[in-house]
Amino acid sequence: MATLRGTLVIGQSGGPTAVINASLAGMLSEARQHSEIERVYGLVNGIKGALAENLSDLTNEDADTIRALERTPGAALGSCRRKLKADDYDRLFQVLEAHDVRYFLYAGGNDSMDTCHRMREEANRRGYALQVMGVPKTIDNDLAFTDHCPGYGTAARFIAQTTQDTGLDLFALRTFVQVCITEIMGRNAGWLTAAAILGKQRDGDAPHLVYVPERVFDEEKFLSDVERVYKQLGFVSVAISEGAHDEKGEPIGVSSAPTDAFGHKVVALGHGVGHYLADRVTKRLRLAARCNRPGTIQRVSSAHYSQVDIDEAVVVGAAAVRQAISGDDGYMVTLVRSPEATYSCQTGLAKLADVANAERFLPDGFITPDGTGITAAFRDYALPLIGEPLPAPARLSGRMVKRIV
Amino acid sequence: MATLRGTLVIGQSGGPTAVINASLAGMLSEARQHSEIERVYGLVNGIKGALAENLSDLTNEDADTIRALERTPGAALGSCRRKLKADDYDRLFQVLEAHDVRYFLYAGGNDSMDTCHRMREEANRRGYALQVMGVPKTIDNDLAFTDHCPGYGTAARFIAQTTQDTGLDLFALRTFVQVCITEIMGRNAGWLTAAAILGKQRDGDAPHLVYVPERVFDEEKFLSDVERVYKQLGFVSVAISEGAHDEKGEPIGVSSAPTDAFGHKVVALGHGVGHYLADRVTKRLRLAARCNRPGTIQRVSSAHYSQVDIDEAVVVGAAAVRQAISGDDGYMVTLVRSPEATYSCQTGLAKLADVANAERFLPDGFITPDGTGITAAFRDYALPLIGEPLPAPARLSGRMVKRIV
Repeated sequence: MATLRGTLVIGQSGGPTAVINASLAGMLSEARQHSEIERVYGLVNGIKGALAENLSDLTNEDADTIRALERTPGAALGSCRRKLKADDYDRLFQVLEAHDVRYFLYAGGNDSMDTCHRMREEANRRGYALQVMGVPKTIDNDLAFTDHCPGYGTAARFIAQTTQDTGLDLFALRTFVQVCITEIMGRNAGWLTAAAILGKQRDGDAPHLVYVPERVFDEEKFLSDVERVYKQLGFVSVAISEGAHDEKGEPIGVSSAPTDAFGHKVVALGHGVGHYLADRVTKRLRLAARCNRPGTIQRVSSAHYSQVDIDEAVVVGAAAVRQAISGDDGYMVTLVRSPEATYSCQTGLAKLADVANAERFLPDGFITPDGTGITAAFRDYALPLIGEPLPAPARLSGRMVKRIV
Repeated sequence: MATLRGTLVIGQSGGPTAVINASLAGMLSEARQHSEIERVYGLVNGIKGALAENLSDLTNEDADTIRALERTPGAALGSCRRKLKADDYDRLFQVLEAHDVRYFLYAGGNDSMDTCHRMREEANRRGYALQVMGVPKTIDNDLAFTDHCPGYGTAARFIAQTTQDTGLDLFALRTFVQVCITEIMGRNAGWLTAAAILGKQRDGDAPHLVYVPERVFDEEKFLSDVERVYKQLGFVSVAISEGAHDEKGEPIGVSSAPTDAFGHKVVALGHGVGHYLADRVTKRLRLAARCNRPGTIQRVSSAHYSQVDIDEAVVVGAAAVRQAISGDDGYMVTLVRSPEATYSCQTGLAKLADVANAERFLPDGFITPDGTGITAAFRDYALPLIGEPLPAPARLSGRMVKRIV
């Protein structure tokens, strides 16, 4: 097959991350290496930009800006959550054809890979020559067929570091606040919540209880878990996924959350499970409890950049362009971990059709049997992804002075 | 007056910060330079530790640990919120005397300076030779007689950086979430909330609306402010103090917050004003709104250390020991800003009696007349305190492609 010549468009979709712009930087840098790519356009707000013909010309974006994108959180092109409908396609392909678009690169999570997949199927149906490639992006780390997703490492570092930091805070406060619950993003998958353990060095360190949505959440068991840890340590640090749910799948403590374009309940827009449970702990156990809900801070915290995450995000972006030019089509770029002891990843490919319909959950081996902890196997998996080792806090020797009065 | 010989005790009190342990490091390093100080003990959980005779021997704490304390958030000795009562003193002085305590150093905010002041008055009344010194610590920056407080700079950097980060996130999201409210610590003083503007580079950058407790909060005006900014920009980033209150002083959207030992309503333990207002925006303005509530993360985020803040925290700790040895008593160490153009501070002294009863609010000149913004004068004051300049995010040139269909 002859290499296509024409315009390459790039879209960003779904929730922003700290490194989706690093993938954009990788795509922009790589695109200018290939004479087949005559123009590079950005879709303003993802697929919505294509429908509205809102295209931003990135062909001559300057090198300094591209480099700065590697450490710019958010989604510089603007994002969207828009599910493609049957009557969108005429307009969509009219715009693509008018701008001679031959390469369509889209960065996002499962829903975005679904969009990519539909685009590609429709292009085939119409006999429109278009190379479609997906670029993985999600702090949730729930895309299948890839070792992990760019965006996860930095968000995981935020969660690991702030759990360590706030654990020290709670330890200091324990005479007047005993329980701190941090509500962490992840509706269905507990990858990010599990990262709370990555700063833990000793048994008594935070977090003491971790609840992921892979397990049914039982409020009574939770209260007895908290009480048990409190009796043992005098303070309790809890990490819980925003998607905590009961056996019917109903979110805990969230009555009126709205749903998004993909039909998912957006619990993040309600009061959340963390505040609900802090309230329950206060009322039922008579312990002072508070809730930290970092919200969007956790996915875009530029002070917590994992260099590994940035580098990999750049690499998957560049790989998407290179593979598309070489004739691959209908794939998402993946990260494939080397079996060597020293961590490294190469890129690979997974079919969009496969990725779009899969969601990857924490395997059983990463969750302790009692459902309140995360295993060493997870630590081995995740620690290389957060970059530099976390700094170790000072520990006073703590020799107590003999009482004399 | 002859220099006293004996034991020096150190206590930490109130909410932890990122650098209260840096002040502890400064005290420990300085104490070993003075032969008059025969032992250094830590009060475990502040004044509670003195009452319970829970003392930790820090005399021979190793140098590496002391250095590591400079970058260890929390309060390594443990903290408390305990108001001294009349019948505490007999026990307290019994313990002090038994351990030959002659130097009492206490790090904290207004309430802790009140504790210091009472201790000192009581020592005088009893004719017990004791040098009492206060060490300023608070992210609230509301202590009077000092240019600023150690702890503020790092917390302010967290707020500035994460407001910038989440502003980029919200810009990207604007087609499906339009309003993001960040609830920031500060019951009565808006210093930390004001820091949200320190990463703002252009007019449209986050935050767009800032509400501090120095001004009465009017919900109707707030809703019309949000609507106005939304019509102008398409997205609205709001920074609001947890202590937002109506004209009667009642907290907004907080019905059932408990009160602490000093009689202050602890709004941080309730659902908070941010979630309440996000809900109001959603229902009244029909915009999708979310709330970030970083909670204790904002005061102990080790990824946001301001080196200026660390250095000053060490210096005030060391100065407290040196001044006490030289015979000063009944003071809190202060920071005095140099009038030179290049930022620097020296230490000074303020009487505990004065500090204990004063609370410093944002001056009128730091708040814009409409009560929704913070002035350049505040920026000039606060920017040197957060350390290294914040990294500038990339801005795409944004040249739009001409529409052809």
